Amino acid sequence: MAVYTDITDEELAELLADFDLGAPLAFKGIAEGVENSNFLLETEAGRFILTVYEKRVRAEDLPFFLDLMRWLAEHGYPCATPMADRAGRILKTVRGKPCALIAFLPGLSVRRPSAAHCREAGEGLARLHLAAEGFPLSRPNDLGQAAWAPMFATLRRDAEALKPGLAAQIETDLSRIAAAWPKGLPEGIVHADFFPDNVFFQAGKFAAAIDFYFACTDALAYDIAVALNAWCFEPDGSFNITSARAMLAGYETRRPLSAAERAALPVLAHGAAMRFFLTRLHDWGATPAGALVRPKDPLEYERKLAVHRASPDLVLFGDLA
Amino acid sequence: MAVYTDITDEELAELLADFDLGAPLAFKGIAEGVENSNFLLETEAGRFILTVYEKRVRAEDLPFFLDLMRWLAEHGYPCATPMADRAGRILKTVRGKPCALIAFLPGLSVRRPSAAHCREAGEGLARLHLAAEGFPLSRPNDLGQAAWAPMFATLRRDAEALKPGLAAQIETDLSRIAAAWPKGLPEGIVHADFFPDNVFFQAGKFAAAIDFYFACTDALAYDIAVALNAWCFEPDGSFNITSARAMLAGYETRRPLSAAERAALPVLAHGAAMRFFLTRLHDWGATPAGALVRPKDPLEYERKLAVHRASPDLVLFGDLA
Repeated sequence: MAVYTDITDEELAELLADFDLGAPLAFKGIAEGVENSNFLLETEAGRFILTVYEKRVRAEDLPFFLDLMRWLAEHGYPCATPMADRAGRILKTVRGKPCALIAFLPGLSVRRPSAAHCREAGEGLARLHLAAEGFPLSRPNDLGQAAWAPMFATLRRDAEALKPGLAAQIETDLSRIAAAWPKGLPEGIVHADFFPDNVFFQAGKFAAAIDFYFACTDALAYDIAVALNAWCFEPDGSFNITSARAMLAGYETRRPLSAAERAALPVLAHGAAMRFFLTRLHDWGATPAGALVRPKDPLEYERKLAVHRASPDLVLFGDLA
Repeated sequence: MAVYTDITDEELAELLADFDLGAPLAFKGIAEGVENSNFLLETEAGRFILTVYEKRVRAEDLPFFLDLMRWLAEHGYPCATPMADRAGRILKTVRGKPCALIAFLPGLSVRRPSAAHCREAGEGLARLHLAAEGFPLSRPNDLGQAAWAPMFATLRRDAEALKPGLAAQIETDLSRIAAAWPKGLPEGIVHADFFPDNVFFQAGKFAAAIDFYFACTDALAYDIAVALNAWCFEPDGSFNITSARAMLAGYETRRPLSAAERAALPVLAHGAAMRFFLTRLHDWGATPAGALVRPKDPLEYERKLAVHRASPDLVLFGDLA
């Protein structure tokens, strides 16, 4: 949950004066997204999310994210559409911070996804990859594989504090991931944070994806690896093969994987677990006492790393097939 | 802001199964209310607030609060109506905690109320007092004048930590308030927390009041005193006489004050400042490091206490008339 920026009624009125959306009728801070402040805004014209971008999102990346959302919406993908003001501007400012008004999307995210949800999510992810084809902008993945070893160099002490002996283990993982990291897989726009929180369902069917603020250019199969980690582990830490198979099957209804992509999934999943472990470890150490946001537990991803380390063929289902 | 309780999609579905409100379409935690967890819920039947009552609200008081809200709504007062399930029950349970589904009310609260807003709010408060007439239940004000000295006995050290010398000053205030506290004023149901956060406007007009979880039986003029403190101080700590006059004038369009009520306003306002100073001081000391909720600053009300202490006739406008 996160509401970092407080918007007054006067500031809201000033922002809305640039749009043709009528007068505000209701305005509430909502607990959605960890990186930004989000507000539910109802005006005479409809319902919107006002997202205020906090310092973690680089202002120079915002045009990429907002143009991508607009591109996807215009190419039939169910995602929230940023609203343009009378001068055609999407990226606005409130209280000195960048912000955007985004059309409200109904839908519910699921807390404990079933295999059926995973199938729907896989299909939704493939649709995203296809809808983004031809999008003219690109953004390197600054949290991609090349970034992990340098990131970890600054976090060794935090890892040891979390669990003695962990730093050496992570270094072994990093070497193994670097040695096996695939090259030449099909690339495109990836969501890069396709977690259950960011996917809406309606009546059990995939309805929409939100929160494109990690989207970037990378191997499409890496996006699947992120999603396998996020959707297919049980609360007890075990990997749910049925859910993983369902997710891949759902994905392949829209975009079949190449043999190279499928073969790369184990190391991609190991790497994707590393990426979330490292950022959570960073946030864990960096959060001051008394902060409004409780950081996510890095140990959840440390356990996923351990699963991939112990069973490198797991996501190929080789050891169970 | 506050979202203490996490509700899963399964828990929500189980709760909704008792109601005739159709399937859930959207569900978001909202940053509203400090005492409870609140969620915006959209179903096929409309929009609702799901309030989950956290431990600060006594479960045995909930029927009073919910029946009062229903009474007020049925007597023409614009406040959120609790929804009954198929068995006629308003008070429900989710994740082992009491909860209620309340119809969504549009409206915006104002951050920095103008004198015109204060006039509207005063009228809205008088309407509340009149609409509650005849409500058959009662609840003593457990944060009323009799409670302040015993509360402060446990908070002396926190007061000194906040500002050296403050404890003795507060004890002098408590004696002065106790000696002058009025008896025999007209009593009834008071909101007891009629702050700008809890009042909605539409197009500059009073639209609704929310958050009745401090409502109780007390002198009606005490409610005005709480509101004068909450609405009529400037950010620099000065008392805005124009706003206070507007609030009283608005109130008196619906319910004229007796001479005794008007004469009691200064000590009631001094006491009302004491009540919020004491609970904020308590919360300030009691909040653990790392808590999700930043407590409100007790010094804001310490400054209001100082204003009433220095100018006992201020809210009578005697020193400026």
